[in-house]
Amino acid sequence: MTRTTKELADFLGCTLEGDSAALVSAVASPASATPEDLIYVDSPRHLDRATASAAKCVLIAPSLSLSGKILLRHADPKLAFARAAAWLIPAPTIARGIHPTAVIAPSARLAPGVAVGPYAVIEEEVHIAAGAQIGAFCFLGRGSRLGEDCRLFPRVTIYPGASLGSRVIVHSGAVIGSDGFGYVAENGKRLKFPQVGGVEIQDDVEIGANATIDRGSLDCTQIRHGAKLDNLVHVAHNVTIGENTVIAAQTGVSGSSSIGANVLVGGQVGIADHCEIEDGAILGAQAGIPTGKTIRRGQLVWGTPARPLVKFKEQFAWIARLPDLAKRVKKLEARVLAEGK
Amino acid sequence: MTRTTKELADFLGCTLEGDSAALVSAVASPASATPEDLIYVDSPRHLDRATASAAKCVLIAPSLSLSGKILLRHADPKLAFARAAAWLIPAPTIARGIHPTAVIAPSARLAPGVAVGPYAVIEEEVHIAAGAQIGAFCFLGRGSRLGEDCRLFPRVTIYPGASLGSRVIVHSGAVIGSDGFGYVAENGKRLKFPQVGGVEIQDDVEIGANATIDRGSLDCTQIRHGAKLDNLVHVAHNVTIGENTVIAAQTGVSGSSSIGANVLVGGQVGIADHCEIEDGAILGAQAGIPTGKTIRRGQLVWGTPARPLVKFKEQFAWIARLPDLAKRVKKLEARVLAEGK
Amino acid sequence: MTRTTKELADFLGCTLEGDSAALVSAVASPASATPEDLIYVDSPRHLDRATASAAKCVLIAPSLSLSGKILLRHADPKLAFARAAAWLIPAPTIARGIHPTAVIAPSARLAPGVAVGPYAVIEEEVHIAAGAQIGAFCFLGRGSRLGEDCRLFPRVTIYPGASLGSRVIVHSGAVIGSDGFGYVAENGKRLKFPQVGGVEIQDDVEIGANATIDRGSLDCTQIRHGAKLDNLVHVAHNVTIGENTVIAAQTGVSGSSSIGANVLVGGQVGIADHCEIEDGAILGAQAGIPTGKTIRRGQLVWGTPARPLVKFKEQFAWIARLPDLAKRVKKLEARVLAEGK
Repeated sequence: MTRTTKELADFLGCTLEGDSAALVSAVASPASATPEDLIYVDSPRHLDRATASAAKCVLIAPSLSLSGKILLRHADPKLAFARAAAWLIPAPTIARGIHPTAVIAPSARLAPGVAVGPYAVIEEEVHIAAGAQIGAFCFLGRGSRLGEDCRLFPRVTIYPGASLGSRVIVHSGAVIGSDGFGYVAENGKRLKFPQVGGVEIQDDVEIGANATIDRGSLDCTQIRHGAKLDNLVHVAHNVTIGENTVIAAQTGVSGSSSIGANVLVGGQVGIADHCEIEDGAILGAQAGIPTGKTIRRGQLVWGTPARPLVKFKEQFAWIARLPDLAKRVKKLEARVLAEGK
Repeated sequence: MTRTTKELADFLGCTLEGDSAALVSAVASPASATPEDLIYVDSPRHLDRATASAAKCVLIAPSLSLSGKILLRHADPKLAFARAAAWLIPAPTIARGIHPTAVIAPSARLAPGVAVGPYAVIEEEVHIAAGAQIGAFCFLGRGSRLGEDCRLFPRVTIYPGASLGSRVIVHSGAVIGSDGFGYVAENGKRLKFPQVGGVEIQDDVEIGANATIDRGSLDCTQIRHGAKLDNLVHVAHNVTIGENTVIAAQTGVSGSSSIGANVLVGGQVGIADHCEIEDGAILGAQAGIPTGKTIRRGQLVWGTPARPLVKFKEQFAWIARLPDLAKRVKKLEARVLAEGK
Repeated sequence: MTRTTKELADFLGCTLEGDSAALVSAVASPASATPEDLIYVDSPRHLDRATASAAKCVLIAPSLSLSGKILLRHADPKLAFARAAAWLIPAPTIARGIHPTAVIAPSARLAPGVAVGPYAVIEEEVHIAAGAQIGAFCFLGRGSRLGEDCRLFPRVTIYPGASLGSRVIVHSGAVIGSDGFGYVAENGKRLKFPQVGGVEIQDDVEIGANATIDRGSLDCTQIRHGAKLDNLVHVAHNVTIGENTVIAAQTGVSGSSSIGANVLVGGQVGIADHCEIEDGAILGAQAGIPTGKTIRRGQLVWGTPARPLVKFKEQFAWIARLPDLAKRVKKLEARVLAEGK
């Protein structure tokens, strides 16, 4: 969608310096921009790139200056850039209308305007609210629920009974509602512990490609408003993930662990079972949280088993100095033993 | 399915205390139970929850007491609870009949009563034994074999020639029989080493969502009776996984490694190639087993590279004490140097 | 395809010792070989297996000897074996012709001879070059491009606009072109940073089952000629992976990191964002590369945070000796304190 710089400045709440009638139609990086693309600069280090860019219009921090460009000044250029992108570039269409090959059970209720791609399968008693787009090969199991404006990319599996809020985005290959991993020993064999609970994904959650989210065993697995999960993340049964928490790729959360709000979890983190990660904690990439451990509010931890970053760094530095420490002990021994004779 | 407490007690081999005609129709956690749900208590810590629960009927250990409930006493309440759940709650139906959209090759042989969901694709010479349910979008490659009562959730890929035993459960998105990862260097490029072996999944195995199991390169990848693999587990070519072994989410097993029977493998464990994990070993979460390493029968290991848990804890404690140790060395140096003068 | 030993020797550039008219039709391991299977021996340790094998024909290193077999001598028997396998055993057929159930948009352009399996979905403006085979349930988003002889196993998702070169192999469940994981904070919520860049997979790349490769945010994610990615590998937005680089299973590469050519990356490695891994580096399994770190050309690193293997081993050895070191310090203290009195 093409806008004038004036319209864009008004929408973003920017001050405009330069031609107010120039057109902006998309966003880009400085290197790949065409004249109609918007770029942004939030650091003096990137001023040269912006100057060299073909883009005519630049979102820029109030403290920076740049000549030869139309400037949109904003206190947070990156945020304004993201908002501009969401305004200028429509979300890609996943499906249009209801494809004739979609298999939709008679008792499924689709709000008017819901779009369903080829070969999607929607079972009995599914409810889908207005504005949802369901990609090709999606499977919505019996009785599952989707809120307004959900976007399921092709090939998402929703097991029976799962519930998604509004504006949930699920990427290709994700599986929501699979059985949790719980067994009881019986004569040396493994008998499945019942995995009959639910799974609730609240509004504005995004789930990455090939991520897996298990249903609860007896209660519910819950991912709260605004949480974002990257590709290949694993969420086990009975886990709770708090509001606006962000979990990077390939992290796993084991059974019955609870993650608070606004937590930042790096990639490949392993959270064992029955842990509690309090609000605002930060778990560094590849950290390992042992069974039953609590990470306190706002704490920044690292390593396996996870400890505060400051302590991790201190210990790591000491480990690096071990050969030297050992030499010093050897020297002391030589001296003391000699004296001791 | 609804049963009387008397019927349930007889089925489970429990002693019954209280109304023998009360009805039980499902299982639940104490908090979410309705009066007809069965709950269980195996620890004095959970007696209060049970008392507060709406459930009328409680599976309980012989040593515990609880008033106001119908009691089913069993030496292992959790096991009895799992058995009760399997009896009361039918496994969810994955498919009913053969959906008209399923593409089934003329030479495929499906036993009477096999159910196939919408858009499943079953290639030439596939054999499926009685009682199997094949979900939507499942792909069964040429010549693959499924035993009795297999349950493939929607969207499982079985590459050509793979063999599954009876009662195998495969969750959505799992891939069985993909090419192993093996190349030979040829003028700086990578030429595929032949990946033409088989994959055999034996009876009562369960495979989690989005797990991947490669075929053998020249021989066979084998997952033996009763093994359970969680979501996103990776099993490379020529691996053997022993009977009743349990592997938690996101663990990877590299080529030609062999895991014995009754092994417990935590989440995100990495087992390099050509390892041998003997029967009954326990590998802690995120452990790393280096190439060619043997973990002895019943050993409990931790860390990367993995070592016995006792040693891991001891070393970890020493690392935490390093700053103190260094101070002590410094003090000694001050004293000895002063004396040496 | 069956060949004489003479034909095979000529094709591979081997010297032949023994019957030149014997037939070879496939490859196998010594244990599973039939008389017409080719086996190979590249180490004296494996001579006994070869002798005991039913195979009549053995690829063998010039320095080894073996009686009772037809010998094909080659300086690199394993490479010759891989070349023989590629010659004797045709790649498995993924699709034949265009299945009537495939949904192909009118503006998609498929070269003559392209094969498309059942229920594949090919959107508008997709271009597929000659020789490609597209498996069942594959989804090729609008405007995506596939080069010659690509092989997509069943159930691969290509998001709109992604570009694949020639002879690219993609295994089942892989997702190419999903949104990168980038958000900007806005009043405590997460607003998606634009994920509108491209993804380019160059010639001869192979991508494992259930791997995920995100599109660039503003620029392009690029996987260069001949790179090989194993199952469940994650590649984030804006990453570059160099020529002939090999990445083992479950490794993750975070945003904007760059991996050079001929790099070997073990399994479960975590590469944080904005790293540079130079040509020929080797990253041991489970290594963790911290944000912004450079690994120098040809360097072999291990551990988290990754350090040179030599240093890792040295440090690890010192850690193991810590209890002893502490004892020695204690002894010194006893001596020095006693003397100090």
